[in-house]
Amino acid sequence: MTEGIQTAVVGVSGYAGAELARLLLRHPQLRGRPPVFAGRPHEKLDGKESAHRGVPLVEIHPQLADNNGAGDLRLEPFSWELLAARGVEVLFLATPHEQSREWAPEALQRGLRVIDLSGAWRLHEQSNRAVYAFPDEGSQQALATQAQAVYGMPELHRSRIAGARLVANPGCFSTSVILALKPLAAAGLLDLHHGIVADAKSGVSGAGKAPTPRTHFMYAADNLSAYGVFSHRHTGELLEQIGLGAGEIVFTPHLLPIPRGILSTIYVRFKQAQTRAAVAQVYRDFYASCPMVRFHERTLPQIQHVLHTNYADIGFELDAGGMRAVIVSCLDNLLKGAAGQAVQNLNVALGWPESEGLA
Amino acid sequence: MTEGIQTAVVGVSGYAGAELARLLLRHPQLRGRPPVFAGRPHEKLDGKESAHRGVPLVEIHPQLADNNGAGDLRLEPFSWELLAARGVEVLFLATPHEQSREWAPEALQRGLRVIDLSGAWRLHEQSNRAVYAFPDEGSQQALATQAQAVYGMPELHRSRIAGARLVANPGCFSTSVILALKPLAAAGLLDLHHGIVADAKSGVSGAGKAPTPRTHFMYAADNLSAYGVFSHRHTGELLEQIGLGAGEIVFTPHLLPIPRGILSTIYVRFKQAQTRAAVAQVYRDFYASCPMVRFHERTLPQIQHVLHTNYADIGFELDAGGMRAVIVSCLDNLLKGAAGQAVQNLNVALGWPESEGLA
Amino acid sequence: MTEGIQTAVVGVSGYAGAELARLLLRHPQLRGRPPVFAGRPHEKLDGKESAHRGVPLVEIHPQLADNNGAGDLRLEPFSWELLAARGVEVLFLATPHEQSREWAPEALQRGLRVIDLSGAWRLHEQSNRAVYAFPDEGSQQALATQAQAVYGMPELHRSRIAGARLVANPGCFSTSVILALKPLAAAGLLDLHHGIVADAKSGVSGAGKAPTPRTHFMYAADNLSAYGVFSHRHTGELLEQIGLGAGEIVFTPHLLPIPRGILSTIYVRFKQAQTRAAVAQVYRDFYASCPMVRFHERTLPQIQHVLHTNYADIGFELDAGGMRAVIVSCLDNLLKGAAGQAVQNLNVALGWPESEGLA
Amino acid sequence: MTEGIQTAVVGVSGYAGAELARLLLRHPQLRGRPPVFAGRPHEKLDGKESAHRGVPLVEIHPQLADNNGAGDLRLEPFSWELLAARGVEVLFLATPHEQSREWAPEALQRGLRVIDLSGAWRLHEQSNRAVYAFPDEGSQQALATQAQAVYGMPELHRSRIAGARLVANPGCFSTSVILALKPLAAAGLLDLHHGIVADAKSGVSGAGKAPTPRTHFMYAADNLSAYGVFSHRHTGELLEQIGLGAGEIVFTPHLLPIPRGILSTIYVRFKQAQTRAAVAQVYRDFYASCPMVRFHERTLPQIQHVLHTNYADIGFELDAGGMRAVIVSCLDNLLKGAAGQAVQNLNVALGWPESEGLA
Repeated sequence: MTEGIQTAVVGVSGYAGAELARLLLRHPQLRGRPPVFAGRPHEKLDGKESAHRGVPLVEIHPQLADNNGAGDLRLEPFSWELLAARGVEVLFLATPHEQSREWAPEALQRGLRVIDLSGAWRLHEQSNRAVYAFPDEGSQQALATQAQAVYGMPELHRSRIAGARLVANPGCFSTSVILALKPLAAAGLLDLHHGIVADAKSGVSGAGKAPTPRTHFMYAADNLSAYGVFSHRHTGELLEQIGLGAGEIVFTPHLLPIPRGILSTIYVRFKQAQTRAAVAQVYRDFYASCPMVRFHERTLPQIQHVLHTNYADIGFELDAGGMRAVIVSCLDNLLKGAAGQAVQNLNVALGWPESEGLA
Repeated sequence: MTEGIQTAVVGVSGYAGAELARLLLRHPQLRGRPPVFAGRPHEKLDGKESAHRGVPLVEIHPQLADNNGAGDLRLEPFSWELLAARGVEVLFLATPHEQSREWAPEALQRGLRVIDLSGAWRLHEQSNRAVYAFPDEGSQQALATQAQAVYGMPELHRSRIAGARLVANPGCFSTSVILALKPLAAAGLLDLHHGIVADAKSGVSGAGKAPTPRTHFMYAADNLSAYGVFSHRHTGELLEQIGLGAGEIVFTPHLLPIPRGILSTIYVRFKQAQTRAAVAQVYRDFYASCPMVRFHERTLPQIQHVLHTNYADIGFELDAGGMRAVIVSCLDNLLKGAAGQAVQNLNVALGWPESEGLA
Repeated sequence: MTEGIQTAVVGVSGYAGAELARLLLRHPQLRGRPPVFAGRPHEKLDGKESAHRGVPLVEIHPQLADNNGAGDLRLEPFSWELLAARGVEVLFLATPHEQSREWAPEALQRGLRVIDLSGAWRLHEQSNRAVYAFPDEGSQQALATQAQAVYGMPELHRSRIAGARLVANPGCFSTSVILALKPLAAAGLLDLHHGIVADAKSGVSGAGKAPTPRTHFMYAADNLSAYGVFSHRHTGELLEQIGLGAGEIVFTPHLLPIPRGILSTIYVRFKQAQTRAAVAQVYRDFYASCPMVRFHERTLPQIQHVLHTNYADIGFELDAGGMRAVIVSCLDNLLKGAAGQAVQNLNVALGWPESEGLA
Repeated sequence: MTEGIQTAVVGVSGYAGAELARLLLRHPQLRGRPPVFAGRPHEKLDGKESAHRGVPLVEIHPQLADNNGAGDLRLEPFSWELLAARGVEVLFLATPHEQSREWAPEALQRGLRVIDLSGAWRLHEQSNRAVYAFPDEGSQQALATQAQAVYGMPELHRSRIAGARLVANPGCFSTSVILALKPLAAAGLLDLHHGIVADAKSGVSGAGKAPTPRTHFMYAADNLSAYGVFSHRHTGELLEQIGLGAGEIVFTPHLLPIPRGILSTIYVRFKQAQTRAAVAQVYRDFYASCPMVRFHERTLPQIQHVLHTNYADIGFELDAGGMRAVIVSCLDNLLKGAAGQAVQNLNVALGWPESEGLA
């Protein structure tokens, strides 16, 4: 078992960054070796630009304060030299995708293992990446980097993540929908001719920390709104990971008036009539050795049951004829949908128990 | 124009009842003639059974208090004699459907015009009514009463509501989904072979005033849950009013962590490719003379825009190929979804301007 | 009775502005004469600067849309010539105080009646104004303007507001606390030696429409925070209007995780022991002819009872010895705390019924 | 160090019970020995009476589910024989105070160590207990039991808790107010002549799991209400633990529209003028060896910073003259205000590190 690994986090000032810091600081395998928290040159803190030089971590995230010593940690200005000097082996990028496109290749060249939480390296098909309009799209370096990237969903790619140099941590919505559909798709049950509908709802932390009209309390509270209809960036992940053709799924995200949590309601048709027992068996088999997915035998999951956990909860209802099902999938967008899955990937990559530091 | 109509409300203690009281008390056509508020013998107030004898209205609904005189109104124990003595002509039943099944026939026999807010008389097909398991199902009186009932959605049945003796006020979810789909169905655009998905989300007032585990703040807050999958009572209304066959629509309600408001996200396919302009024209034409439906030309509606109004807001997005659309429909479940539509029906039934007292 | 008054609103893009627009558009005395909505040169819309030239009102505030014609209103670029050309007689300033300091004097010179919703003209003592640091403090024009200003709380200054040229609409917190304390102070009951504590809690709309870290949903939701301790700008209004010396009241505002509404909990001591009946009589007498204050005889008011109304609700509890009381005072910060009180002032100023357009 | 202690919990079905179960199941000192969860004979589950015989723990609290084995735990019907058979040494009573009054004496006689989360044994003065109207008040057994009870606030009574047979876990509001005031009272700084005001606000979980009109989402959401003015049961704890005379503090709780968390705003006067540094030093000294209290040097704490933690956060502002202070104290009512403090007491009682299993 690897021991004494040194980690670093770039982009700790956001919501996923805060959860990542919390998880890494209490991770049993990292005890005594807190991550290096490195500030991007122009990272913004509470709306004001700042070089983050020496800002105490607890000033940005007061909830991380304790009397034990984490209170002494400070953000340091990012440099490759800093990482080298500290002996960093694993670099978490909780940065915007533009930055991850730029930094991941260099980190790999410098021998670092990278776990990237952005959308920079998740998509293998160029057509699916078009929506991001990466400036370096098609460059040799980018293509080579992409070729090394493993989609960081241990339930689907555990063996490839073990040992991967670049893990592309999945999107929050994508995780919720893929985990619900992959077992049925893999079992060949889905009638794709009729199309799948994935109606997803997310808490406001998914919209990021920047104060905008959409993240204003007065916009989000006592409200519900759909957005990104037919155009959300996570759609490409669904196609690639579930194995769907364009147009075989409609995915609509909504902004919920809650801080965190995602619930996806997914409507499918089967090629032939199913029994409840048969469908349940498909899920049980697929997730038999997956500690972070909880399949609900008799009830539908709710957002409250997964908050502040790294679990994805899945349940379903079958119609009377057995031809249609409604699947409900829940997770905490900051944990299984971001920082928690990143730590799960860390565990798998380094050969530690998959739910270490997450239960 | 009819003048000086005397109204009565049974079931004012619930949320829809409170809104109905507020609307009737300020209705220009009813000025100076407040409704008779009649308590059911065993109506419960704040969890305690009460005969409602003489309870001041503002004790049940403090927000109705003012210094003008409404503060003097009291609930009176219900009796047919009371209604006769007060010269009541229009009776609103904001009662459970069991009670409406019993009282509506008698009210009609006594010559009263009835606007019933429950599910008692909305469904014309016996198969659709099965889910209610009415004890008097199939009785001659019940069938005769049902035959007189008009589904109280003025946008669809304006001329039949004018003059109707029994108006069956639609369900809140039903109103939201029917208003979104009827124009497209009536225009023959919908490909029903692929099925329609209606994913609906409602605030907690839709679950009623009774304190239950599901209406507890700790259950509903910071949460989202699906319920009634493949089995919700409003499904029959969708089939009958949109003109769909069984299995052509899947309707899933969710409980939102907000007090009021419904947003339905509806997924349809077209028989042939449509342009945005063509679909918009269908909506504009259908609702040309409907003051309480607002069609959004360029944006999707949100719950906040309809709260405390009687409007239903509708918008849509078309996919690139023009074969699929996502329609978003919003309303306030206590107004356009209940008490507001009831007053709209009153206006239409009595020949008053349709939005009188509602704008 | 004056008729056909033409009004104008500057600053309609904020939350109070939206409520003001709604109230004026439906005001019975202004029927057929919608306000002129004049955009400030650099007013920001949804975070983006805009000259507001020709922006439809319903694009800024979709909830104002209807099918009757209000949907056709547009913001016009502000100019004094515009106001003159339209025959504006009453100008509402829903602008930041810096702007109101500049524009109110000119408006008065041009013969307009001004109702200012900012803090620019509320304070008569220079020491109390210091917290605003007005650049024109002490100038002859400013002093002359201030001398004309009447504090716009009809319950205290009804006769002076009637006919006033410049009405300084009170602060939201100030209204809540002053209405609770003034009757007791005027009756000479308060023991000021022991000091008064006013612990106030406000919904997020009180923090304004600008997206900031504090108005971010993630900051405000599931949270409560105190701010402006010993330093909030509304303190001066409390001193002047209740007639207190510096240090005789401690006022602490808090940010509640709700969109709107204020509840103030106020702790007082009496010079001598009181009975419940005696204190209640003081309130009843003081507010006998005040249609917008509801004194609760037996219960404590709650925020829900005043939302979307222009009422201030007041109740109290007396301790066993009769020497101390806890007073609870509630209002809707956007109505009685801002736009509603502004319309109430309009009514009083023009001799209309005080609650016209507000009930 | 004691090892292999067997614990039992009665009353796991409530909110504090759920947190207690979660904490004990992951407590490092209890690894491999899950608590016995014993159902009271008439404990209600989700509103329905149930003997709890064999109900799986995760059916009551789905959020406790995992794939490791906790999912196999079931509630067992309570009996003293059950506890004896399992070798239970420490009994947590998360029961109503009526039940704790009855069971704690018997548990002590049977040699069990008891940590009681109710109000049954917190008050040493008979006059302060009057508000509970215990039926056994004054009985020899009750007086003897009370004499053994130690008020379970480690920050005040650490040495007496070590070894105590009966720990009376403090009230949630009491914890919040006492921790804020005790250092100042102990240092002799407080001017009690002018009286202290403690204005406290709590999330809805503090009102319990029973569905009532007050815990209905529609009552609590978008609202704020004061209750128990001059009469709340926690007042006696404040008097005894801070060392105040009757009438020297006014304590008013409010119901916040959030699931959990308490913020208390406390107004004090000093006997003589203080500096910020001097007051801060008092707090720092008092809590120097207290791992679960975080004193904020420069900012005021907020509820968000303590949610899902066992910390009490304290900060203050001093007025210009140094004679008055506003103290803000925050905690999570289910953790430091209930289950977390109970585990902290377990740690202290058994000689384990005070924050074991809590950080």
